[in-house]
Amino acid sequence: MKAISTSLTDLLTRFQRIRNQTENICKPLEPEDTVVQPMVDVSPPKWHMAHTTWFFEEFVLKPYLPKYKVFHSNYSYLFNSYYNSVGNRVQRAERSTLTRPPLRDIYQYRSHVNEHLTKLLENPDERTLKEMLPVLELGLQHEQQHQELLLTDIKYILSTNPLLPAYTSAHELEKAEYVPATYLDVPGGIYRIGYQGNDFCFDNELGVHEVLIQDFQVMNRLVTNGEYLNFMEDGGYVDFRFWLDEGFSLSKTSNWESPLYWVNKNGRWLRYSLHGLQELDLNAPVSHISFYEANAYANWAGKRLLTEYEWEAATQAYPPHQGNFSDNGLLEPTAASPNQNGMQQLYGDAWEWTYSAYHPYPGFSTAPGALGEYNGKFMINQMVLRGGSCATPSDHIRTTYRNFFHPDKRWQFTGIRLANK
Amino acid sequence: MKAISTSLTDLLTRFQRIRNQTENICKPLEPEDTVVQPMVDVSPPKWHMAHTTWFFEEFVLKPYLPKYKVFHSNYSYLFNSYYNSVGNRVQRAERSTLTRPPLRDIYQYRSHVNEHLTKLLENPDERTLKEMLPVLELGLQHEQQHQELLLTDIKYILSTNPLLPAYTSAHELEKAEYVPATYLDVPGGIYRIGYQGNDFCFDNELGVHEVLIQDFQVMNRLVTNGEYLNFMEDGGYVDFRFWLDEGFSLSKTSNWESPLYWVNKNGRWLRYSLHGLQELDLNAPVSHISFYEANAYANWAGKRLLTEYEWEAATQAYPPHQGNFSDNGLLEPTAASPNQNGMQQLYGDAWEWTYSAYHPYPGFSTAPGALGEYNGKFMINQMVLRGGSCATPSDHIRTTYRNFFHPDKRWQFTGIRLANK
Amino acid sequence: MKAISTSLTDLLTRFQRIRNQTENICKPLEPEDTVVQPMVDVSPPKWHMAHTTWFFEEFVLKPYLPKYKVFHSNYSYLFNSYYNSVGNRVQRAERSTLTRPPLRDIYQYRSHVNEHLTKLLENPDERTLKEMLPVLELGLQHEQQHQELLLTDIKYILSTNPLLPAYTSAHELEKAEYVPATYLDVPGGIYRIGYQGNDFCFDNELGVHEVLIQDFQVMNRLVTNGEYLNFMEDGGYVDFRFWLDEGFSLSKTSNWESPLYWVNKNGRWLRYSLHGLQELDLNAPVSHISFYEANAYANWAGKRLLTEYEWEAATQAYPPHQGNFSDNGLLEPTAASPNQNGMQQLYGDAWEWTYSAYHPYPGFSTAPGALGEYNGKFMINQMVLRGGSCATPSDHIRTTYRNFFHPDKRWQFTGIRLANK
Amino acid sequence: MKAISTSLTDLLTRFQRIRNQTENICKPLEPEDTVVQPMVDVSPPKWHMAHTTWFFEEFVLKPYLPKYKVFHSNYSYLFNSYYNSVGNRVQRAERSTLTRPPLRDIYQYRSHVNEHLTKLLENPDERTLKEMLPVLELGLQHEQQHQELLLTDIKYILSTNPLLPAYTSAHELEKAEYVPATYLDVPGGIYRIGYQGNDFCFDNELGVHEVLIQDFQVMNRLVTNGEYLNFMEDGGYVDFRFWLDEGFSLSKTSNWESPLYWVNKNGRWLRYSLHGLQELDLNAPVSHISFYEANAYANWAGKRLLTEYEWEAATQAYPPHQGNFSDNGLLEPTAASPNQNGMQQLYGDAWEWTYSAYHPYPGFSTAPGALGEYNGKFMINQMVLRGGSCATPSDHIRTTYRNFFHPDKRWQFTGIRLANK
Repeated sequence: MKAISTSLTDLLTRFQRIRNQTENICKPLEPEDTVVQPMVDVSPPKWHMAHTTWFFEEFVLKPYLPKYKVFHSNYSYLFNSYYNSVGNRVQRAERSTLTRPPLRDIYQYRSHVNEHLTKLLENPDERTLKEMLPVLELGLQHEQQHQELLLTDIKYILSTNPLLPAYTSAHELEKAEYVPATYLDVPGGIYRIGYQGNDFCFDNELGVHEVLIQDFQVMNRLVTNGEYLNFMEDGGYVDFRFWLDEGFSLSKTSNWESPLYWVNKNGRWLRYSLHGLQELDLNAPVSHISFYEANAYANWAGKRLLTEYEWEAATQAYPPHQGNFSDNGLLEPTAASPNQNGMQQLYGDAWEWTYSAYHPYPGFSTAPGALGEYNGKFMINQMVLRGGSCATPSDHIRTTYRNFFHPDKRWQFTGIRLANK
Repeated sequence: MKAISTSLTDLLTRFQRIRNQTENICKPLEPEDTVVQPMVDVSPPKWHMAHTTWFFEEFVLKPYLPKYKVFHSNYSYLFNSYYNSVGNRVQRAERSTLTRPPLRDIYQYRSHVNEHLTKLLENPDERTLKEMLPVLELGLQHEQQHQELLLTDIKYILSTNPLLPAYTSAHELEKAEYVPATYLDVPGGIYRIGYQGNDFCFDNELGVHEVLIQDFQVMNRLVTNGEYLNFMEDGGYVDFRFWLDEGFSLSKTSNWESPLYWVNKNGRWLRYSLHGLQELDLNAPVSHISFYEANAYANWAGKRLLTEYEWEAATQAYPPHQGNFSDNGLLEPTAASPNQNGMQQLYGDAWEWTYSAYHPYPGFSTAPGALGEYNGKFMINQMVLRGGSCATPSDHIRTTYRNFFHPDKRWQFTGIRLANK
Repeated sequence: MKAISTSLTDLLTRFQRIRNQTENICKPLEPEDTVVQPMVDVSPPKWHMAHTTWFFEEFVLKPYLPKYKVFHSNYSYLFNSYYNSVGNRVQRAERSTLTRPPLRDIYQYRSHVNEHLTKLLENPDERTLKEMLPVLELGLQHEQQHQELLLTDIKYILSTNPLLPAYTSAHELEKAEYVPATYLDVPGGIYRIGYQGNDFCFDNELGVHEVLIQDFQVMNRLVTNGEYLNFMEDGGYVDFRFWLDEGFSLSKTSNWESPLYWVNKNGRWLRYSLHGLQELDLNAPVSHISFYEANAYANWAGKRLLTEYEWEAATQAYPPHQGNFSDNGLLEPTAASPNQNGMQQLYGDAWEWTYSAYHPYPGFSTAPGALGEYNGKFMINQMVLRGGSCATPSDHIRTTYRNFFHPDKRWQFTGIRLANK
Repeated sequence: MKAISTSLTDLLTRFQRIRNQTENICKPLEPEDTVVQPMVDVSPPKWHMAHTTWFFEEFVLKPYLPKYKVFHSNYSYLFNSYYNSVGNRVQRAERSTLTRPPLRDIYQYRSHVNEHLTKLLENPDERTLKEMLPVLELGLQHEQQHQELLLTDIKYILSTNPLLPAYTSAHELEKAEYVPATYLDVPGGIYRIGYQGNDFCFDNELGVHEVLIQDFQVMNRLVTNGEYLNFMEDGGYVDFRFWLDEGFSLSKTSNWESPLYWVNKNGRWLRYSLHGLQELDLNAPVSHISFYEANAYANWAGKRLLTEYEWEAATQAYPPHQGNFSDNGLLEPTAASPNQNGMQQLYGDAWEWTYSAYHPYPGFSTAPGALGEYNGKFMINQMVLRGGSCATPSDHIRTTYRNFFHPDKRWQFTGIRLANK
């Protein structure tokens, strides 16, 4: 990853803001909410809070703050996620065993690490700073990734509760107009793919390289709940011809008949959101669908998904950081705007499944040591998603950002943008 | 079940004492401890607290307290255990989804039901009382059963935590002397089996009937940790000849090499207890073993387990209510006394596996309605255990009491008493 | 087990008859039928043919025929079933890996062992004979047990084939009249249980002991398909109140809605038999049901199953060896006779589930060495069945014979006889 | 797919040759070998023989031979593989239920279809011929694919047998010299990818398109057993840093410590082959490894796997059809030649894992109807392999041929060629 240059004061402010944001996200939770793990993909919120803190302790404080004493000798074992280089760890599926340390200890752990990091940043020597800054930056980016996971994991945890409790109350939104789908031309040619700026990016965005792309057309907005409902009502989950074989089998054995969180009550479709059970907004983007469903929808519509190269090529002209991100607290994808030309909903709202496997770019290389385990070892069996979602912090997305999930996963805010063949 | 006759004041006192005891048991827990379910046999402590309360609400307050309003309309669904007659319920394996209602709501629920029950008992009409008393008594017995499960479930929950936290601090016990095993004669003959008194008993103790028993000899105390260690060191877990076939297979696939909770550190055996990791007391009774291990031990020792009829016959002369029960707070089986003649450790310490399947006695019948689902529907694939344990309340045991678990279960305080062939 | 005294000629004749019978059973099979294992309980017929032969080679020829050379050095490993004492073996679930040796080699193996056994029996010395005879007898009884398994395993194997092929053609049977169910008195008292004769019995029939039995009444015949259909049509598989809890859960997850092998075609019930798909004979005994279904039926009917002691007590007056056994080749339970007083269908037709766990009798002991692994190590989690079936050889049944299966098994010819409470 | 133009006589000869070849492959088998299915990926040989025949019956004879009567009305159901459009079918994992029809019936089925196809080809009308030829060609290509699967499935089936029987006897090969690994330059640039000829190809090779490739270097031969042994001895299966995370987990839970079929006897490595257990030839290419192992090896060696585009670019200059194919009957990868310049072992020997997901080429489209289900619906979660193996017919491979398997599969002849970074 590349490091950013920044003033120390700005960095400290940003550090505090991001660290606070994690605690803000957890504020509405009961202690009991923070310890369960209803499926292996979901981590207990308490674990997220501790693990993001452990990252700073392990990779910043221990190497760079002289005489630093760890908060608790067991925490390195308890809150390591998957860094084999760091030593043993609690297995991913066993995170709900950590009923202790209790939540209040984790808050203390966070304070302890925050205080020592603040001290470290107050008066660093030059050489330490140069070495440490990229790691610190990675720690902040890492924490923002976990903020998105916190929101989606909390949603999943609460959704398994028979009471279907709301996480927060809903914002009142004006009823949106319908925006017709159109297809915009993207000219073919050789495109440079990967991060070329001077700020932070993840290692998986590097290996900048040229890709030859053919002319194609891209949809101006995301596919809506209403359009997806048409697919459902037209036998979308019944007709195998739209589906990849493994997806169709899975949809049968898992009894998928709609996106995750949709509930049919007496013939009316509702959806569980972080604000509780709500009416389905037909004009809002469909989300919480697997790659299999996205691809089946595309086949049904006579279109296709984009590759990640096409997505990046089509989007290079659009600045990120504008969109429906977690910052606004809506926490649901919202309808497209009728007054906007060109593409919209590129950033925020819902991650867009591409038909590209998550593989290394040419020349991809990993950092030495534990931090090299960040991205590369997951480069198999997963598909790339682009553009961020309503659970992504607005300053955490780039045109070149590569998110990745297995094609069967549905608990993230994942949606569909189509290409014309 | 039979109802007891008692004064209302005594009943009320007993009601309050038993209800308080449940809350005392949960006092050392963090909220996070009360919601997890590390294996399907274990229920979250919060669920135990709510479920025992639901029993009184469902079966006492709703039918007998005029105009009673339930504390919360969803709780009947949430906290029903397995009573099909009462309607839908949260599946047993899904109890950790109940992060809400939070623990403090469950305490309010308990207070609410306690208050209304107290009111109901203050001035009941005769007919209601007569009908209601047996159900109320069953509710108290039921709560005591859950008190034992609470302790064993808490032990299991905390044991899965890598920190191996203690539930309470340990009592200091004097080092006990070794008591040699002897075998006492029990004369054969026709014995009446089953509960013949006038106080409460469970339905599975009824169907009093005569059983013809042959002469045999019974061990004066429980098998000790030290004796069990001899078995282990003599290849007890390696030599298939001692084992029932299904038990041996299970011991291999589950990597059983000692009782549950035993930990070998550098060649030294420790055991996890509710007081944390402790030295193994070689003179204390072995516990946390399956029926398979109990039976393998018996075969290795050239002895056998008793049948439940033999156990009852041998014990009829001994009064219950004396022994190492949960009341004394030790919460571990303790060594036999060198100064006691006859059998000891019959009650308390550890449940004694018998080689009797948990089947109905002749003439067994169930109560009509939901309460009939109490015991009868579990009468398959389980083995009878007798005598109570260090987690049993002292006023909750009888000579005729039939506890039952599948032969592979190990998380209860289960031990071994032998018969001579 | 006890050995029989018999003339050597008679023994040889019997040996040849029983060995031939196994081959007769396999004659209608294709080689491909003899190697598959569609569920772990079912063994490939080729394996049965080899394993029964291995028994004689291992336990008779090797110890008693001087200079005997084994047919093939690998066969001891390949065709041992579960005798740990004999050494390693192919795991039970892996028997379909044995596509080699081919079927014709197994026929040669059988001939080889038959010839050497015949030679051994021609001129044995007295001492050898005395030692060997009980083992030889056990080998013959063992082979007869496998003959029954062969028929039920073949039935299961062919039933999984979408073509539902017939094993043999059906006998034409006259349409039977309906025989009403009546209940006959059995007087209570002390009964001697277990085998008391001088001929062969299995070790699990020993430990003759007295049991005190109360007065009860027993049904004169087996429950019929028509009666069972009434249970089904009255919601027998829907109403949990009739069921043991584990049985009801299993019936749901396994989609049980009728006995095994019943097929509903357009509202009409057919059943797969060894003669292919056939009309359901409403007056024939129901079979291929689990203990759970038998017990649910009994509860629905307001009756109960017998214990194995009651069964033996009720049956002591009836001679075995009369009934619908495998000898007549019908291979299906047949309707009761309208002209017969007292109990009928006690022997043959269908094994009768009892509500007795398969446990050791008092004083049960096993033979030393490998033969001691015959019965004892299975004495957990299984229920006793009595009386034999239409797949049992007529000379292989006794009043005291204890068959045993797990309560969920359905691929044997298992049926129901009721007791009046 | 594209059809070939050919004379009818040549076509008929080729048809007969290919059909005979399938039967030649099955000749050494016992009937019992042809029915088992030791893992779900493996199909019973009898099923392969019938299914390839069904393809011709279903897609050629039924539509194009007037008044054709199917051999057996059930075979369409029994021997359909995964064509949903054709109707119901026996589930893939249930193919060993087909002990009937017996092998001899399948041989008759093959003859029946062969005869009718011959008749159809004798005097076809022009229009039929034009329509039918592409389907017939696809049928032949399909049968050749199953010939490779037959050999690898037979190998797997026999390898599960504890006797480790040989399928055929081995050819005597001269001991090969060691050929050092060198890396050859491949110039970057825009390459046309996909099949551009006029003969047959599969639909997944179409969507010819241009790809921009960077300069790289490719290994002159396949990685050898000896080199792979170095990897193993250097902790290749122990050090997580070489591995993709899912691959490392799988290697642990599956106890992978060597390629499939390698057996360590007293410290000496042997390997099971179709000729039985043999010495390991250190100079022969390693095979029977998963993508995970191939990629871990590449990381250990400080190299990487090629993409499928690089492989095709590097290979365009090399004619296929030369190499160690199934035609020569060796049925094992053989050592490289010391006297050959440039790349070798490109075709035959072992399929080469690429680091490319099996996805559609741009503009990929499927045939209408059932034949459209041929390739497209598998385009997820699988990796592309190139170049054919020692089990591939020599006339069945192309530079553009895309084989595909999940990254964990090991039962095919799969090997490694490296690229220099």
